[in-house]
Amino acid sequence: MTATVTSPMTAPTAASMTGRYGSLVEQWRAACPAEWQAYTRHAFVQGLGDGTLPRAAFLQYLVQDYVFLVHFCRAWSLAIVKAETLEETRACTGILDALVNHEMALHVQTCAAEGIGEATLYGAIEEIETLAYTRYVMDTGLQGDFLDLMAALAPCCFGHGEIGLWLAQEAGDTPYRAWIDTYADPDYQQAMAQVGAMIDGAARRRLGEAPMASARWPQLQHRFTTATRLEAGFWDMGLRGGSCRA
Amino acid sequence: MTATVTSPMTAPTAASMTGRYGSLVEQWRAACPAEWQAYTRHAFVQGLGDGTLPRAAFLQYLVQDYVFLVHFCRAWSLAIVKAETLEETRACTGILDALVNHEMALHVQTCAAEGIGEATLYGAIEEIETLAYTRYVMDTGLQGDFLDLMAALAPCCFGHGEIGLWLAQEAGDTPYRAWIDTYADPDYQQAMAQVGAMIDGAARRRLGEAPMASARWPQLQHRFTTATRLEAGFWDMGLRGGSCRA
Amino acid sequence: MTATVTSPMTAPTAASMTGRYGSLVEQWRAACPAEWQAYTRHAFVQGLGDGTLPRAAFLQYLVQDYVFLVHFCRAWSLAIVKAETLEETRACTGILDALVNHEMALHVQTCAAEGIGEATLYGAIEEIETLAYTRYVMDTGLQGDFLDLMAALAPCCFGHGEIGLWLAQEAGDTPYRAWIDTYADPDYQQAMAQVGAMIDGAARRRLGEAPMASARWPQLQHRFTTATRLEAGFWDMGLRGGSCRA
Amino acid sequence: MTATVTSPMTAPTAASMTGRYGSLVEQWRAACPAEWQAYTRHAFVQGLGDGTLPRAAFLQYLVQDYVFLVHFCRAWSLAIVKAETLEETRACTGILDALVNHEMALHVQTCAAEGIGEATLYGAIEEIETLAYTRYVMDTGLQGDFLDLMAALAPCCFGHGEIGLWLAQEAGDTPYRAWIDTYADPDYQQAMAQVGAMIDGAARRRLGEAPMASARWPQLQHRFTTATRLEAGFWDMGLRGGSCRA
Repeated sequence: MTATVTSPMTAPTAASMTGRYGSLVEQWRAACPAEWQAYTRHAFVQGLGDGTLPRAAFLQYLVQDYVFLVHFCRAWSLAIVKAETLEETRACTGILDALVNHEMALHVQTCAAEGIGEATLYGAIEEIETLAYTRYVMDTGLQGDFLDLMAALAPCCFGHGEIGLWLAQEAGDTPYRAWIDTYADPDYQQAMAQVGAMIDGAARRRLGEAPMASARWPQLQHRFTTATRLEAGFWDMGLRGGSCRA
Repeated sequence: MTATVTSPMTAPTAASMTGRYGSLVEQWRAACPAEWQAYTRHAFVQGLGDGTLPRAAFLQYLVQDYVFLVHFCRAWSLAIVKAETLEETRACTGILDALVNHEMALHVQTCAAEGIGEATLYGAIEEIETLAYTRYVMDTGLQGDFLDLMAALAPCCFGHGEIGLWLAQEAGDTPYRAWIDTYADPDYQQAMAQVGAMIDGAARRRLGEAPMASARWPQLQHRFTTATRLEAGFWDMGLRGGSCRA
Repeated sequence: MTATVTSPMTAPTAASMTGRYGSLVEQWRAACPAEWQAYTRHAFVQGLGDGTLPRAAFLQYLVQDYVFLVHFCRAWSLAIVKAETLEETRACTGILDALVNHEMALHVQTCAAEGIGEATLYGAIEEIETLAYTRYVMDTGLQGDFLDLMAALAPCCFGHGEIGLWLAQEAGDTPYRAWIDTYADPDYQQAMAQVGAMIDGAARRRLGEAPMASARWPQLQHRFTTATRLEAGFWDMGLRGGSCRA
Repeated sequence: MTATVTSPMTAPTAASMTGRYGSLVEQWRAACPAEWQAYTRHAFVQGLGDGTLPRAAFLQYLVQDYVFLVHFCRAWSLAIVKAETLEETRACTGILDALVNHEMALHVQTCAAEGIGEATLYGAIEEIETLAYTRYVMDTGLQGDFLDLMAALAPCCFGHGEIGLWLAQEAGDTPYRAWIDTYADPDYQQAMAQVGAMIDGAARRRLGEAPMASARWPQLQHRFTTATRLEAGFWDMGLRGGSCRA
């Protein structure tokens, strides 16, 4: 389903990302290279970087991403429900605050500039890719524990961080510069570094000092990989440009 | 995304279904005629009836439907978590027992006859349509109350009942006769009639004597309609015949 | 189980509270006068007002209330999971932020002044009354919808508001003045007024214009009354002064 | 809070229980000897064995235990929501079926013989001990994963098995023989042995071959110990004989 990657833009070197967001994320990411690349170097992403992404695709993405954010707020709230240390509670509350009071507001503002009012955002029919991704994350939280939920939340957080850094370096003249800046922003990067450190702590607390050697690792990796697949599906949906509904 | 309906088979008359599964289901169904028809008269369904459904499509469906059943069991268990009367608890427990001890076993048996072993079923990668539908139902249960969950579970239960009855009357010579018989079976029909009556009771208890006039009705209808859309998406996935993964 | 009320302090007049926190809270409160009085005019509360509350009782309460707050944060996060409008999400996020970044910090500070370090707070064994109340609220959220959860959260929010106002007027010279000021504070009162208005909106959206006439009313009232009973139990626990563990 | 143990009845030897219900249960139980003894050799239990338990206490227990069973069914349903293997799903479904279709029916029958009709059972106001225990279990399921939930469910299942075996050997002439027989029954014992084996498998899958050495062990033990404390509290409530409500 994913489009072929043909962009001439330079890929981020493995080294440039190593350890940036902590060791667990690094291990999850390294264990599903094909899915991770299909997501972070998706044609949609490259179109943001070289400016070739059709406006209709970007608008389709913007509207669905607003819906996505609503459920992402719910998912980080579920993380607080499942947190078992004060550090976990505080980190998740910080993310939630940023999402509700900053990122969603920014989204409403960006959409308004595109002539999409809040009423349209609120009333948007969810595409199947939006439903699949957001509800998979929620159900992961219901079925598993805090760490399972983190594995399903991680691809969005850190993938956008990685995409932002990559495009900030490589992107040419593009009308999507503001989007790139959002995720390349040092504040976003620092927040993600903190979340990554919190996830490493959460893993130590539940899996011990060698998480990859633990019995739960394959299941956690499966959740990370599935969410990564669903991120790529979300870009696919954007590329359809709003012409199709589940 | 849904295929065009071109089958010459006669549609079930509205009258033939009226009231069979209770009044709430009837109202939900009547309020989304396009989505309901796209689901219950989908090309996949018609292919089951006239025998033109490719074997690969049926097998793709079978494997994903096994995964679907696993999560459907989880959803009916969540219904027991949310039940607020003994009648609700008992009805849901009955459904769950039928699913785990009968329907899943039948599925394993059917798949075995097709040369698909249990290991393949267990290890099947979930298609995006399977993820979207099953997790939407689970999250509906987490977000809302018992009745919200029933609205999301209803299209599968009663749609299959309606499809079974329709195909039992209209289907010609088809290798999918056993599938049709499963849902046309008087036991299945009776079980669904009981579930429909239980849902009517659950609605009376929460919405009063005129559910459609209640403030919650639009939201409940939205859940039913969304799940109906996702059912049609599930048939779409079957028609892809296993060639594509999210 | 509740201690006899013998304080000479004047009770708040019904009028003084009417409508302060919205109409739903007013109706719930008025429908369980005995339980509401047992909670808001509990001997523990009166001891805070006239300064007769033993220090040991206050410390026992402080430690358990910290544990309570941890789960209260989880409960308001669950409310965000269950919210169905942006207004509901925003109101709950605001409360959560106040709890995590203000109230819990204040608690840690107050306990520190009493010589109770954070380690003691974190490691405190939960009393049965703390377990009963907090987990009843959480499970109400899992079983019902947003409004059910609000009914279980309401007694704590608005009861403390009412107690704060009452004691601010009536209390004499007491070492617990800081506690009283926390809840009599205009900021707290205004926050509660906003939460009350949000609950009224949540009820309109789900129950229509006459919530008390809706089929769900008895169940919602039952949740409010049960949580009120459990609030009184929490004061009982405080009065035990730490001498007893479940 | 727990009554002093003064019965002359012989305690079950450690050996007699070892391994009966699997190794995880054995380890949990051995790590909280005081709490386990306070629960399994509680004055209420001894009164069942020597026939000295007042009828009022037994009736109080019976009514609250019915309410307990309702929520226990919800807890085992939540276990199915959280199960991650077919074996886990099947084992929990079996328990649920036994609870709803057998144990609850038996309870209604026993209560009827005591002159307590179903209406009384349904309408019973929950005591604080019932609320604390049942909701703690539910919230454990919401907060943690399948194994956390098992740790909270285990004390009830296996404690009753152990009590049944002990009293079957040691009890004298007592009007509570039917109660004892229920839990000493080979069918109950076999079911518990199967649940114990399933829990061992669930632990291997999540914690590896040395569960006690895993990072999560202290938290799992804490859940088991807390649920054990709450079981003792449930007997305390029975001994109050219905004279007191939270």
